[in-house]
Amino acid sequence: MNTNQRSDGSKEVKLAQHLTELVGQKTETRQDPWCVLPYLRLSPEPNVVCFRSQQFVLIDTSEDPPVSRRAVLRDLDEDGGPISPVNMASNSVTIEDIVAARERIKNYVHVTPIMTSSTMDELTGREIFFKCENFQKTGAFKARGAINTVLSIKEGRITPGAKGVVTHSSGNHGMALAWAAQIGQLACDVVIANTTSDIKKSAIQRNGAVLTQCEPNAVSRIETCKRISDEKGYEIISTCDHPCVIAGQGTMALEILDEIPDLDAIFVPTSGGGMAAGIAIAAKAINPNIKIFSVEPEGKNLEPCLRSGERLWPNPPQFLDTIADAMPMQQAGKHTFPILCELVEKTVFTVANDDIVKALRFAFQRMKIVIEGAAALGIAAVMSDKMKSLDPSIRKVAVILSGGNIDIDHLPWAH
Amino acid sequence: MNTNQRSDGSKEVKLAQHLTELVGQKTETRQDPWCVLPYLRLSPEPNVVCFRSQQFVLIDTSEDPPVSRRAVLRDLDEDGGPISPVNMASNSVTIEDIVAARERIKNYVHVTPIMTSSTMDELTGREIFFKCENFQKTGAFKARGAINTVLSIKEGRITPGAKGVVTHSSGNHGMALAWAAQIGQLACDVVIANTTSDIKKSAIQRNGAVLTQCEPNAVSRIETCKRISDEKGYEIISTCDHPCVIAGQGTMALEILDEIPDLDAIFVPTSGGGMAAGIAIAAKAINPNIKIFSVEPEGKNLEPCLRSGERLWPNPPQFLDTIADAMPMQQAGKHTFPILCELVEKTVFTVANDDIVKALRFAFQRMKIVIEGAAALGIAAVMSDKMKSLDPSIRKVAVILSGGNIDIDHLPWAH
Repeated sequence: MNTNQRSDGSKEVKLAQHLTELVGQKTETRQDPWCVLPYLRLSPEPNVVCFRSQQFVLIDTSEDPPVSRRAVLRDLDEDGGPISPVNMASNSVTIEDIVAARERIKNYVHVTPIMTSSTMDELTGREIFFKCENFQKTGAFKARGAINTVLSIKEGRITPGAKGVVTHSSGNHGMALAWAAQIGQLACDVVIANTTSDIKKSAIQRNGAVLTQCEPNAVSRIETCKRISDEKGYEIISTCDHPCVIAGQGTMALEILDEIPDLDAIFVPTSGGGMAAGIAIAAKAINPNIKIFSVEPEGKNLEPCLRSGERLWPNPPQFLDTIADAMPMQQAGKHTFPILCELVEKTVFTVANDDIVKALRFAFQRMKIVIEGAAALGIAAVMSDKMKSLDPSIRKVAVILSGGNIDIDHLPWAH
Repeated sequence: MNTNQRSDGSKEVKLAQHLTELVGQKTETRQDPWCVLPYLRLSPEPNVVCFRSQQFVLIDTSEDPPVSRRAVLRDLDEDGGPISPVNMASNSVTIEDIVAARERIKNYVHVTPIMTSSTMDELTGREIFFKCENFQKTGAFKARGAINTVLSIKEGRITPGAKGVVTHSSGNHGMALAWAAQIGQLACDVVIANTTSDIKKSAIQRNGAVLTQCEPNAVSRIETCKRISDEKGYEIISTCDHPCVIAGQGTMALEILDEIPDLDAIFVPTSGGGMAAGIAIAAKAINPNIKIFSVEPEGKNLEPCLRSGERLWPNPPQFLDTIADAMPMQQAGKHTFPILCELVEKTVFTVANDDIVKALRFAFQRMKIVIEGAAALGIAAVMSDKMKSLDPSIRKVAVILSGGNIDIDHLPWAH
């Protein structure tokens, strides 16, 4: 479809008019027959432009008037090549997808409680609401995305031919996918590093998943996953980049805004960015003025990437030295990153290990909840000096406590 | 009023008829002009009989027809002497008092969440509901009784002349009373042993209470309390025996039965018994068929006391060697014990230290909540072998997780 034929001037004008009508604001046009609406930000690719972040409008200028279609994240070719118009709408992550995900998963996951702490409110001078995903099934928010994906496969809504699912994760996502696959009676392989502890192995096996060991590096993990997918016909379920995973994680935002409709901001621990993307899509669709802040472990350097819109991280992907052991990867996901660039605040809260420990202790001692290092990030952020200088009109703030799977025999303050 | 004059036969017959009408079942009568209805159990005292446990009906046989009045627990003279009819009704602990307490304290305490655990339900073959008082203000259920007492004093409903409150407790009750007194702008002294740790001292002082040190034994604590009460005109607020404390703790049962109306049983960690008494009064008034089970640390020996209706404990009161450090006293309260005898099941669940540790680990690892040793008692009870043989028709069981004030730097499984 990408014939690269140049459109003439009159076509370009018509296209511009059409796009202006479509988005209700003045737009530019591109010269390819399949061009894309530059609504918010031009992508580095010649014919791909983000439209409300997770969606793209593709315009076929060979038709008169030009035909527009929605396309989605996962249609983005990683090399920046032309986008196939096939399967576009079915893969979109929209507020509607997230609302549908909530309905789909409601019998399997908890609507987790939102807790407050008067001590924290006094400390911060704001109203802080903690979304307790440590109480979620499997002990982390990952259950949402995993069960949404598995049920979507079972319904035939995505990859109808998939004979099972496979992922690489020895942590919360692996455990959640194994749990979800067992519920969905779907075969599940989890690729783990051959250095993974027996405790983690048995936690995944308890839910009936097949474990496949690989070398403890990113390349081996990806290759092993792909091999299993090819051999067995299993769908690869990324920890963050799969649209059903993103939609599942987004259901948190629906629950939060149901309970606190006048919320000003949400603080989200950000690793791959599936949670931040899903929450941002849902929350911004409900209230475009709400602010989504990423919170990262020290060394991730998300802020310059968000500000430049470029993946400034070194390759191959690096691991971070952080107590937030559920979020070791430095890089955000390929599909989530553009969403973060557009919907999430450029100001990123960065948390050092010492502050993670302080935040963990606050959770245990004052809030009486068991959380893991990653979940402590948001607490550390709202307790930070940086928070004090944040716009005081940001008054009601939700913080995602992402999970509670911490090793209680080796708490980071124990000697 | 206790003239000990003997009533004649015809008066006795009339009294019997009157009492029979009053309680709707055949009764016996006694010979004193102020006699008491032997409804359920004769007390050792000559003219005092328990009537629905926390209340007594006193009958003045010198009137014709005999005049009946309700009296209450705290009117019981400890020596078994005659009961003064003064202030009777005002000191009663009834379901109405507990409903009023809920209304009185609602702006100050949390309606704590009730959590479930599918793992626990599978383990026990029943539906277990955990009432999470670890999330309560001050980190324990004690906030309920303390604030109800302080506000009742401020309203002039009890001891209108009281210039403050005093108690002896270096733990949850002391902390809760200090917190409540600060809210009520009432002076508060807390008597603590001179061996109390600085951490506990500062936790109490943080809420503005005056600390008075005493020798680390029961006699010194009581004497010091009494001296302060006499000197300063402060009301002594017992950890368990004060009617406003009992009523405050009873509010938990209202919340539980609001949420789970068809509950079959409640498991309550029992030390002084204020919580068990309050919960039993409220729950049994709402549903007389509900069963209240006490759970005790090893060495308390509550069961033979409940079965015999006698205080079989050695004197002076002994301390228990238990990880449940919020409940060190062997003896139940003087006023709560008769309530327990009547309303609480004779079968008591006894928990050894090892099982407290297992239950704590279950709470931390599986439920992701921080609880203290005392709160682990109920979890240990429902996980016990004894539970397996409990009547299977007891299907829906609430367990009170009484508090979360555990020293996270010295968790009992850390080496």
